[in-house]
Amino acid sequence: MFDELIEMLEQKNYTELKKQLSKMEPADIVIFFEILDREDAVRVFRILPKELAADSFAIMDHDMQEDLIESFSASELQEILDEMYLDDTVDVIEEMPASIVKRIISHLDADTRKIVNKMLRYPEDSAGSIMTTEYVTLKPFFSVEDALMRIRRTGLDKETIYTCYVTNATNVLIGVVTVKDILLSNDDALIGDIMDKDLIYVETEEDQEKVAKMFDKYDFLAIPVVDRERRLVGIITVDDAMDVIQEENTEDFEKMAAMLPSEDSYFKTSIFKHARNRILWLIILMISGTFTGMIIEKYENAFQLFPLLVSFVPMLMDTGGNSGSQTSTLMIRGIALDFIKPKDIFKVWLREIRIAMLVGFTLAAVNTVRMFILYYSSHPVGEIVKYALLLGITIFLVVCFAKTLGCSLPLLAKACKLDPALMASPLITTITDAATVLIYFSLAVKILNIPM
Amino acid sequence: MFDELIEMLEQKNYTELKKQLSKMEPADIVIFFEILDREDAVRVFRILPKELAADSFAIMDHDMQEDLIESFSASELQEILDEMYLDDTVDVIEEMPASIVKRIISHLDADTRKIVNKMLRYPEDSAGSIMTTEYVTLKPFFSVEDALMRIRRTGLDKETIYTCYVTNATNVLIGVVTVKDILLSNDDALIGDIMDKDLIYVETEEDQEKVAKMFDKYDFLAIPVVDRERRLVGIITVDDAMDVIQEENTEDFEKMAAMLPSEDSYFKTSIFKHARNRILWLIILMISGTFTGMIIEKYENAFQLFPLLVSFVPMLMDTGGNSGSQTSTLMIRGIALDFIKPKDIFKVWLREIRIAMLVGFTLAAVNTVRMFILYYSSHPVGEIVKYALLLGITIFLVVCFAKTLGCSLPLLAKACKLDPALMASPLITTITDAATVLIYFSLAVKILNIPM
Repeated sequence: MFDELIEMLEQKNYTELKKQLSKMEPADIVIFFEILDREDAVRVFRILPKELAADSFAIMDHDMQEDLIESFSASELQEILDEMYLDDTVDVIEEMPASIVKRIISHLDADTRKIVNKMLRYPEDSAGSIMTTEYVTLKPFFSVEDALMRIRRTGLDKETIYTCYVTNATNVLIGVVTVKDILLSNDDALIGDIMDKDLIYVETEEDQEKVAKMFDKYDFLAIPVVDRERRLVGIITVDDAMDVIQEENTEDFEKMAAMLPSEDSYFKTSIFKHARNRILWLIILMISGTFTGMIIEKYENAFQLFPLLVSFVPMLMDTGGNSGSQTSTLMIRGIALDFIKPKDIFKVWLREIRIAMLVGFTLAAVNTVRMFILYYSSHPVGEIVKYALLLGITIFLVVCFAKTLGCSLPLLAKACKLDPALMASPLITTITDAATVLIYFSLAVKILNIPM
Repeated sequence: MFDELIEMLEQKNYTELKKQLSKMEPADIVIFFEILDREDAVRVFRILPKELAADSFAIMDHDMQEDLIESFSASELQEILDEMYLDDTVDVIEEMPASIVKRIISHLDADTRKIVNKMLRYPEDSAGSIMTTEYVTLKPFFSVEDALMRIRRTGLDKETIYTCYVTNATNVLIGVVTVKDILLSNDDALIGDIMDKDLIYVETEEDQEKVAKMFDKYDFLAIPVVDRERRLVGIITVDDAMDVIQEENTEDFEKMAAMLPSEDSYFKTSIFKHARNRILWLIILMISGTFTGMIIEKYENAFQLFPLLVSFVPMLMDTGGNSGSQTSTLMIRGIALDFIKPKDIFKVWLREIRIAMLVGFTLAAVNTVRMFILYYSSHPVGEIVKYALLLGITIFLVVCFAKTLGCSLPLLAKACKLDPALMASPLITTITDAATVLIYFSLAVKILNIPM
């Protein structure tokens, strides 16, 4: 894909290289950088048009940013920082080692430095930490013509001009107006008359996940961020919200697979960090497995008399675990997307128990057929019927138990303000395991008349 | 939250109700509708301002849309259809029963009907099926002033005016230009000179998931859709892309929990459909469990001599299953976000096997401590050591096996153009189960000197 570009680089044909690169999207340029060595990367970066260079720099991974900054001269660093949007600058600073942070900060002008420092103080994952401070503000007494003039004069450095924010003399947010509204109104209409006064905004401390959900719900292109006095301090744009949604989804996937969520992507995380993220839950789940083992120990003479009993344990455990994780996954996703709320718990359970009965009954029937196929030639029919009955009832009860647990744990977690994703399959599997062997062996004792 | 509104409705204070509703966002109005009975919903819908009514209607669930359409008079239906964006109309039509579809189609004017019919023929989940045909087109010879005039004259009915599309005489897409670029240029600049000629577009047949990923990658507000001759036929806006991302994520969650993905939300899906979505994989996995059972049967005399062996089976199976699903989840997510590619398989495996060794060793060590705590008072030390050794080696090997499987299956699936999400935890757990009991019992036979 990049063969041509690399050839130009090798032949030092920088004019043509620059021309080709200028046509590319920042996201594609970053992919190109990933295959270059550090020296080439710096060379290529220097020939990029300034704006494209800044846009590409903003979306690189942090190691590459660090490499580049180390190679920059003072004036080069200055240029990039001038071009970058403030929220991206803050992102970069947050990830750099102290020496580089110091270097960056020293290149910011006093005003910018003040803003950056303020943004760095917002809690991680808060609205304040992902907002940008570059937006267009208007006053209510502006005419449409004034507004257009102001947008055309100041819009160049703004992250979006499509939503403009109307503030009063003390910078309190009093309305929003889109460029669409402005363009579609008469030149002499007043901004105060055409602006939307029914404001939807977030405070700086708001969780970024909630902000992202608002984009999803309201289809906004940008959302204003205000302080406690409703003074406008920033905006969050839809592209940042999309990143947050993907991040939060990844976190949910990781938590649901019994991992601590990792901050970096797969290849950027060290082997030790990977191991650390995975081991905690594995230890907890391994130790909780002790209980299942203890229950089995209690029924030692059951499987000494009927060793065949043991061979069904894995199938029963997996069926229970899978049934439970189906339900818990639907709950966790439903809670994340706001379709299911803790107050629905009884309604959900009523549905799940009916589904469980349908599923349990079908599985029990399929299992009975399977038993006859497997054992008809080697075991007497009476024995097969007894085992099929034992397994059928166990499957039915286990599925009902697993689905009950699968719907109640995530909803209860949410009600207790815990993260529902933590109540995912591994935890539910472990509890279901213990219940499964308990149900199975106590039924076996009854149905097979085992003396205890 | 809606107490006031309901009071107004009961007191038939429609003036005030209309005033309050007009201030609300469509998404919130729909939530209000959900608590009203059908009759009240129709009454409230009728007093909404036309545009707000159409916007709310477009995002309602399909049952509510059906209820409303059934209550609409011909002219009411006409009004709503006139106000709605075309892609939303197509969405509605796709979900309605035939009688209502006929009624809707009969209310569309000839041109619109032609477009709708064409859009209905695009494959489900394709770019064509989610695009809208309402966008602003410009010609390269327009001046900025012309362009602004055209936008101001025709922009009202367009889904977005912020990206305008430049086409030649035969409607072939030759450039895009943002309203920002237009506003920030001189009045007499030519669109052909300021437009971006390096086009990124999709074809109508493109998979919607790929389109959504392009938004994620390039941070666009809209992307043009072209036919095979690169003629512009529609655009897809960022809010539709966000919906697709959430849909695809939900589908991945469902598949990874061994379910067939459902089309409707949790409460809208019937009990039977829920059961049907869940039962297929449960049956497949239950039947594959037979192999694990057969392996156990083979080692009958092992656990007849050492019944304690059985009590460790659940813990070993769960540890294997959890280790495997950690890795497969990271792979599936990495593939979905394009961080991990099939060609990385060896690089990934090298990482995973090193992580597996770290994790396996730690778990084996923790288990040894656990064994001593549990059995020190009741078993001779020599026996505990033997069991701890057996379990330690098994855990180590099982974790290595599970992580190998967890990274290779999703990547191989991707390489074979299958959905990696299908290779998730339940399948990997089932295979790991069989491997676990095989490794465990064959080691047990050696370490405990069991005659076979």
